[in-house]
Amino acid sequence: MRVGELSRRSGVSVASIKYYLREGLLPAGERSSPNQASYDDGHLRRLRMIRALIDVGGLSVVATRDVLAAVDDPELPLFEALGRASGTTTDAPAPEEEPDEAWEAAERMLAAHVDERGWQVSAQNPAWANAVGVLATYVRLGDGDLANQLGLYMRTMEEVAEREVAAVVNRGDRARTVEGVVVGTVLGDTLIAAVRRLAQQHQSLRLLGEAPTNPRV
Amino acid sequence: MRVGELSRRSGVSVASIKYYLREGLLPAGERSSPNQASYDDGHLRRLRMIRALIDVGGLSVVATRDVLAAVDDPELPLFEALGRASGTTTDAPAPEEEPDEAWEAAERMLAAHVDERGWQVSAQNPAWANAVGVLATYVRLGDGDLANQLGLYMRTMEEVAEREVAAVVNRGDRARTVEGVVVGTVLGDTLIAAVRRLAQQHQSLRLLGEAPTNPRV
Repeated sequence: MRVGELSRRSGVSVASIKYYLREGLLPAGERSSPNQASYDDGHLRRLRMIRALIDVGGLSVVATRDVLAAVDDPELPLFEALGRASGTTTDAPAPEEEPDEAWEAAERMLAAHVDERGWQVSAQNPAWANAVGVLATYVRLGDGDLANQLGLYMRTMEEVAEREVAAVVNRGDRARTVEGVVVGTVLGDTLIAAVRRLAQQHQSLRLLGEAPTNPRV
Repeated sequence: MRVGELSRRSGVSVASIKYYLREGLLPAGERSSPNQASYDDGHLRRLRMIRALIDVGGLSVVATRDVLAAVDDPELPLFEALGRASGTTTDAPAPEEEPDEAWEAAERMLAAHVDERGWQVSAQNPAWANAVGVLATYVRLGDGDLANQLGLYMRTMEEVAEREVAAVVNRGDRARTVEGVVVGTVLGDTLIAAVRRLAQQHQSLRLLGEAPTNPRV
């Protein structure tokens, strides 16, 4: 198909398509003449994925390009593709240049929980610094109650991750598998956060006895 | 204390403090002379909270101001304060102007799960549209596996929210309670996402038999 049809079927403007082509997010179409290229269903699928990662997952164009490079690299182990997806997605409070007391206390807290659950995780996993950054903020604000939720989050996410990884392992095709990892990792954050909000509303109503202003049903 | 000491103790530059004062995030200090104001521990605490929401929680300055207004309003029910915190935090895929088939299928899927669990949630909760937006994207990408995780996310978040709301209810002081709700809601997303990544790494290793490149221990 021509670029106009690709635009119509994907709902992405021709200008954006050309921008993604220039930035290397979308592979070039097949040249049919010096001024014309033709695109196929693979391009359409890739374009939908780009928009999912940017619009729904909140990734930047650069982060999206990095993640897609992992999808396209047939040599990259599944495990690394997962790492690539995770590295680009969580908001990253930069680790302190000189860790203060709060940072060190937070890191000890996380390490104790990780050891207790027997998790094997890499020191290079950016999620480590992200988790420590949040816990250190709780410590600085004097919010012990909040830090106490860590054990609960770890127990529930251990179950969630087990089911997520198992679902991915069972896909046959490598490209589809990595695609599922990337989309599920990035968009899963948004879905889990939204579900947590709905659950909080339900539990507030139940525990505080306050009614929703405009009940859904 | 003077603004210089407030800056030193909070680690926030004088320029940023003046910006937060102008934008109404930080209440004015007590005027001690036409050119000088004095600040107290309440300002220090508020400043730490502002930086937590912006730097760690990823909120914009405008969203931070809105959330802090909820903290400061003694008339606002706890439940609404929670809503204010949630409305500003999740990445919000805008609801379609004309819902397409994927959007409608996603909404039916979410409604069926919500009814099955007996959750009472408001149609105005922005989390509803956020969740539908992600599920609609899964439907458009043909990723049924991913949409199937919804039940798992709902079951685990129901437990998480129950514990979170219960912890908040038990705080005595209203201002501290709302502060805990806001910080826990906004930063909790980042912490849960980071813990999910660590859990995914652990489970990938366990289920795929791949070792982390730089183990933490």
